[in-house]
Amino acid sequence: MPQEALVQTEDLGLLVDLYELTMIQAYWAENMNDTATFSLFFRTLPQGRNYMLACGQQHVAQLVTQLRFGAEQIGKLRGLGLFDDDFLEWLAGFRFSGDIHAVQEGTPLFPQEPLLEIEAPLIEAQLLESLLMNYVHLETVLASKATRLVNAAQGRGVVDFGMRRMHGIDAAVRGVRAYRIAGLAGTSNVLGAVTHGLSAQGTMAHSYIQAHDDEEEALIAFARRYPGTTLLVDTYDTISAVKGLIARMARDPDLNIGAIRLDSGDLEQLAKTCRQLLDDAGHQNIKIIVSGGLNEHSIRELVVNGAPIDGFGVGTSLGASSDAPSLELAYKLTEYAGEPRLKHSPGKHSLPGRKQIYREQREDGSYRCDHLTLRDEQAPGTALLQPIVLQGEFQDANLASLDAARERSLDAISRLPPELRSLVEARPYNVTISDKLEARRRLAQSRLGLPDN
Amino acid sequence: MPQEALVQTEDLGLLVDLYELTMIQAYWAENMNDTATFSLFFRTLPQGRNYMLACGQQHVAQLVTQLRFGAEQIGKLRGLGLFDDDFLEWLAGFRFSGDIHAVQEGTPLFPQEPLLEIEAPLIEAQLLESLLMNYVHLETVLASKATRLVNAAQGRGVVDFGMRRMHGIDAAVRGVRAYRIAGLAGTSNVLGAVTHGLSAQGTMAHSYIQAHDDEEEALIAFARRYPGTTLLVDTYDTISAVKGLIARMARDPDLNIGAIRLDSGDLEQLAKTCRQLLDDAGHQNIKIIVSGGLNEHSIRELVVNGAPIDGFGVGTSLGASSDAPSLELAYKLTEYAGEPRLKHSPGKHSLPGRKQIYREQREDGSYRCDHLTLRDEQAPGTALLQPIVLQGEFQDANLASLDAARERSLDAISRLPPELRSLVEARPYNVTISDKLEARRRLAQSRLGLPDN
Repeated sequence: MPQEALVQTEDLGLLVDLYELTMIQAYWAENMNDTATFSLFFRTLPQGRNYMLACGQQHVAQLVTQLRFGAEQIGKLRGLGLFDDDFLEWLAGFRFSGDIHAVQEGTPLFPQEPLLEIEAPLIEAQLLESLLMNYVHLETVLASKATRLVNAAQGRGVVDFGMRRMHGIDAAVRGVRAYRIAGLAGTSNVLGAVTHGLSAQGTMAHSYIQAHDDEEEALIAFARRYPGTTLLVDTYDTISAVKGLIARMARDPDLNIGAIRLDSGDLEQLAKTCRQLLDDAGHQNIKIIVSGGLNEHSIRELVVNGAPIDGFGVGTSLGASSDAPSLELAYKLTEYAGEPRLKHSPGKHSLPGRKQIYREQREDGSYRCDHLTLRDEQAPGTALLQPIVLQGEFQDANLASLDAARERSLDAISRLPPELRSLVEARPYNVTISDKLEARRRLAQSRLGLPDN
Repeated sequence: MPQEALVQTEDLGLLVDLYELTMIQAYWAENMNDTATFSLFFRTLPQGRNYMLACGQQHVAQLVTQLRFGAEQIGKLRGLGLFDDDFLEWLAGFRFSGDIHAVQEGTPLFPQEPLLEIEAPLIEAQLLESLLMNYVHLETVLASKATRLVNAAQGRGVVDFGMRRMHGIDAAVRGVRAYRIAGLAGTSNVLGAVTHGLSAQGTMAHSYIQAHDDEEEALIAFARRYPGTTLLVDTYDTISAVKGLIARMARDPDLNIGAIRLDSGDLEQLAKTCRQLLDDAGHQNIKIIVSGGLNEHSIRELVVNGAPIDGFGVGTSLGASSDAPSLELAYKLTEYAGEPRLKHSPGKHSLPGRKQIYREQREDGSYRCDHLTLRDEQAPGTALLQPIVLQGEFQDANLASLDAARERSLDAISRLPPELRSLVEARPYNVTISDKLEARRRLAQSRLGLPDN
């Protein structure tokens, strides 16, 4: 394989922005290494979104506890000409020694709520900034897109066809896990499926039909080879293709076709016509799958209009979360050496100190509101931030299976106020800030001689 | 490292959509393995774009020629329960034996123009679909975003701060190369820089200031440690911070500050005020760098309004190409066994056969138009599709250094009609279809009994 084809595991420690290294060398030289708390959160939701689905914390916990700088990597850093030998020697012995508290993967979150908080010696916590953000950002962005598709499909299966549009190999593999947690029914991505213990799904491409001289013969050959498969019927003329299949099935009762796939044209009308043709011929059991430029809005429209569709294949809009490919995730120092810390920039407020999120339920189990508090406060509801790394040790007990994470996520989403599951911006979910947290914010402001805002 | 942290090189062959494998097993069983031509192109430009910058072909060529299926990977495929032993045995011996013609990386392209064409036995060409698309899609999307930032900055340097928003590790490393080809001045991403032989750039984070008890002492300590560095001055109050630095420099002439960075607030006004303060104190040499939610439009506005800014750091909008994170790249069978092939779906036309792009220049060297022809035709201009893989062998002679690719790309962009370098949609560049290619399209249509359209 080409040298640049893939990132090597040993190089992961170099996946930093340069300033992390120059800053921590300065800290190291200044002996500034008291305990710091960094909080990972977002200040606002992407347009049209009502919640984000936190994901990626598990990979981060594993990554952080296993991150090392080998001799080769130290050599590469030495080559930058910026770092002292003493500092590089320290880096060669790096082991993460801090704690990470995180919400469980698949938890719906709202602005200002930490996806995770890290408490560690300042140098360690600062070193991890970009790597940790890259990991959580990707998985949270993709899971949060997938949950919209699932909500729009109202119980019909949504399958990921997006691998070719995903941003690189790493996204293509980790994305499949994030999609699964968010409730997607399946994926066509073989490596993604195999890596995460899922089964891969698939149909056929137009090229299969085109390569054959006769469409019908191509479809029949494929169905004989893969009984129960899905046949793509829109290469030339959808209705003729379906009529042809029906005629063949009449002559050959052993033909086993699981579904047809429509990939172009007026999907609603075609689905209705094909359903009618199939039903009239007694093929109620043959499903109809649609694909082709779908997103949550077109899926919703098809569902609302009663198109007889059993499943959706989604590619482009899913693969890079086309309407919101980025989340303004912030990784902010909120406490250092026991003192609250704040940044003061117009429009960019943050909350100081170590925090906790309590999620309060109504009697029927639906979510009433969240309470954002200091870590050691009590408030009504369930505490969402739980330790996943303690003193540098990954807490295996909190490791969830993919199935469990998915189940928990779907359960949580079902408890949200229903309007938050719609595709349009709803009234924001209520997140209260505790008096103590607010008082701490004011204290931090005044300590810095800043105006209250 | 966690098992799932990174994709292993050996697993790359599994990065397929399932249908590729089921289709090629069918081809294999049917003995359908004549030479096929697949064309990789896009039908339309993303909204507001006037060209795409082709990128990723070099990685594809290296990847394709080195792709193998090891025993472990074959075992994983066997586990899917879909594949015969004979077929898996064939796959274990897979070596790409075909040709790939591609445009050079950094070439501006227009709809219907192939980024690359692959001629190979049908089974091989079909197997590579998704992997090849994933590679080219990512690099083309990122290079095409970067070229807009470069165009908007009109000669001022644009530095990539986007690693934390990029979709995973692979994107973060390959992206740096694509950005470089497109003309970005630098990157803060250490692994990306080291991998591609570039120097990394960086400043400091707000957390560095916050962790210290005094902003000015923090800045001075950093400047002493890293002479010529860039200091972030907006953590609390930009103007006070700059005035403080100027006062310190007056007392300590050895202080060497290379630049200040503004990351929030009214960047144009702040830049003007800071420039004035610095100039009045005789610090004309201290540069002003800005960052914070920038995109090509805000960069253009700052440039047009004459803000005294020397460089831009861009993160979020660049990292996932936020306005156009996906390109509707198509990988279509255009010829099989010497016969032209076409798909006929509403709104999705393609051109049959093996093609060539000729780019014609005016006398002053600017680009006049392109001619899309059959591969063996002649037309005015330079033939853009050149062999990068022949009979399965990577053509090293066509391997360009990153510097050469960048230079060639910047040269090509400078030859485009100027309106195509603007940020708004311009009159489309003229791409003619040769008579022979058009005739071949009609022939393919009529051969399929399809209406002409």
